[in-house]
Amino acid sequence: MKRVSVIGVGKTKYGVLKDKTLLDLAVEAASKAIEDAGITPEGVDAFYLANYGGSDFVNQSHLAPYVGAALGLRRGVPCIHIENACASGGSAVREGIIAIMSGTATRVLVVGVEKMNTVPTPKVTEFLAKAGDWENEVRVGYTFPSAFAMVARRHMHEYGTRREHLAAVAVKNHSNGLKNPYAHMRKSLTMEEVLGDERVVADPLRLYDCSLITDGASAVVLCDKNSVRENLKKTVDVLGFAQTNDTFALYQKDNLTRFDATVEAARLAFKMAGIKPQDVDVVEVHDCFTIAEIVAIEDLGFVPKGEGGPATLDGLTSIGGKFAVNPSGGLKSKGHPVGATGVDQIVEVVLQLRGEAGERQVRGAEIGLTHNIGGSGATCVVHILSRG
Amino acid sequence: MKRVSVIGVGKTKYGVLKDKTLLDLAVEAASKAIEDAGITPEGVDAFYLANYGGSDFVNQSHLAPYVGAALGLRRGVPCIHIENACASGGSAVREGIIAIMSGTATRVLVVGVEKMNTVPTPKVTEFLAKAGDWENEVRVGYTFPSAFAMVARRHMHEYGTRREHLAAVAVKNHSNGLKNPYAHMRKSLTMEEVLGDERVVADPLRLYDCSLITDGASAVVLCDKNSVRENLKKTVDVLGFAQTNDTFALYQKDNLTRFDATVEAARLAFKMAGIKPQDVDVVEVHDCFTIAEIVAIEDLGFVPKGEGGPATLDGLTSIGGKFAVNPSGGLKSKGHPVGATGVDQIVEVVLQLRGEAGERQVRGAEIGLTHNIGGSGATCVVHILSRG
Repeated sequence: MKRVSVIGVGKTKYGVLKDKTLLDLAVEAASKAIEDAGITPEGVDAFYLANYGGSDFVNQSHLAPYVGAALGLRRGVPCIHIENACASGGSAVREGIIAIMSGTATRVLVVGVEKMNTVPTPKVTEFLAKAGDWENEVRVGYTFPSAFAMVARRHMHEYGTRREHLAAVAVKNHSNGLKNPYAHMRKSLTMEEVLGDERVVADPLRLYDCSLITDGASAVVLCDKNSVRENLKKTVDVLGFAQTNDTFALYQKDNLTRFDATVEAARLAFKMAGIKPQDVDVVEVHDCFTIAEIVAIEDLGFVPKGEGGPATLDGLTSIGGKFAVNPSGGLKSKGHPVGATGVDQIVEVVLQLRGEAGERQVRGAEIGLTHNIGGSGATCVVHILSRG
Repeated sequence: MKRVSVIGVGKTKYGVLKDKTLLDLAVEAASKAIEDAGITPEGVDAFYLANYGGSDFVNQSHLAPYVGAALGLRRGVPCIHIENACASGGSAVREGIIAIMSGTATRVLVVGVEKMNTVPTPKVTEFLAKAGDWENEVRVGYTFPSAFAMVARRHMHEYGTRREHLAAVAVKNHSNGLKNPYAHMRKSLTMEEVLGDERVVADPLRLYDCSLITDGASAVVLCDKNSVRENLKKTVDVLGFAQTNDTFALYQKDNLTRFDATVEAARLAFKMAGIKPQDVDVVEVHDCFTIAEIVAIEDLGFVPKGEGGPATLDGLTSIGGKFAVNPSGGLKSKGHPVGATGVDQIVEVVLQLRGEAGERQVRGAEIGLTHNIGGSGATCVVHILSRG
């Protein structure tokens, strides 16, 4: 079975980018990744484009050749658009990996992009809610903030999780994001500020428990490990990966404090990689809400169930802690351009494993993991990477 | 390199299906294909869902796990939604093939589905137009009927193609569709009726030059050829495939009468299959408009440039002719549920190669080809199949 390496990464600034189109963003991130890989657009054999809401946000579908043609890819290059809600990016990276494993491509470009700040916030919430079960939940008032509020409330009930634990996630991720020049909201937060903030979004979640509405793009270039040129600077290898599914609607889940798709994806990816959670140095998880990070580090096996909050409050997941979670700032501070997020998690882990993460570098990081979920946890994609 | 076989096919009736939801349609087609393959949902290792406009037509995105969970797929099964405009189906089948070639899956389910009759026709046209270049063309009046009208007008100018040639495509495909119990519009048309019809859609295209707004779903089960059980009935093998891209907007093309993405996809797929156009017995092409079939059979190399119209009028592409084109009735009569179309082309060719196409059977068919395009020809997917 062919092994796959990441040979290039690139991204745009994340934020409210009024003067850049979706195409501008995708081309900028792609061009940087292609340059970082030491190749040209002609060297790309297959192209995967992750995007969630182009049709709604910018009236543009069929985005893969839209971006591919603008990049000047060869005519024989398949350009494929992957949409798996907030896990679009992780899914696209996985398709890129298996394209190489299939022998049909040697070098694959994967770009994730989202341009969201084109409509008012309630419209954004509505567009995002289409990733949930419209007929049975959304139509009658379900939104993602309300869904994760229920997850938080139940986690508090079952495990004694408190608002301090949620706040600790926000404070840590904003502290990390402050060290990331590409992050959307580079704003330091104290526990007092977060706990004192009274802007309730969906009780018990308040404003600082929620991720951001962000424009941005991120890209990676994948390569058959046997074809990586020797003169290339540090590369990163894919050790394991898995994509799983679960019941689609929240009401169908028998347990609100555990995402079974994450549990299974972690099991499969760790098995493929032949390592254990304690071998991992750096982790990027899907903290669309603070509670989601707590649930994720439990479901991934980094801490026992119910201990995600205390572990965060105790600093185990800080840069310099036992295992760094979301050194990039996460969706919470770095931002969450939906289609880009899963790709950007790979970008961050690659930078960390190459020792190029600047002020937020996790010292001596050798193995990293990414965790990307979609909808009400109906999709989970996990990748495990190691220094090449 | 692993070889891939199609071991099961299934589809719903195509038409205006007011009483069936998108989920109903997808589950019905998938269940039939799974049964035809002699397996159960538990036997599926990976799932690709092709859909273009679920977000617009039924407010539902994240469709892959939506359908996958309803089918009862195992939790460890990756469910991936592919959107490549009208070529979504062909793209999804290709991803399924390479998933098997990668060694990550042995049996792959691919479902294409579209539920379109939820909004008035002008809205359908608007939603479909998002597959074109919104910023530069659609926003100022571009629609797909107008685009293909320009292609027709230029083809007439360059090659002397006449309305009789376009009409011959409609008459043939409606004659074929009459023999397809699953077709949307099972209505016989004469040359006189088509030529006499004065309902202009976009000059020179009239009503009978246009494909249909259709609800429906189609599905295939792919399998590693080495794992096909010996007791299984006739299987069909994938000989070759290719997916290509081209300039995105129509105005960027230097030639309106040729789709370069088709020319290149045909070249690559024939090369991979090791055969020539004259070896093909049955063809399903993307006749979204009558002129599109004429251009397609030229670009695929079945007839010289400019001779697609006369070849059709002379009966070369009829069932019983030199090579049968669109024996299913094509998008024109069978219908065009956008995300399903590329998958259904595979279904039809498989039925033909298995000798199970009933009244529309192409006698002795051994090799078939499918041709699926997206947007203004910015994506093309070609598959070549042979009797197993």
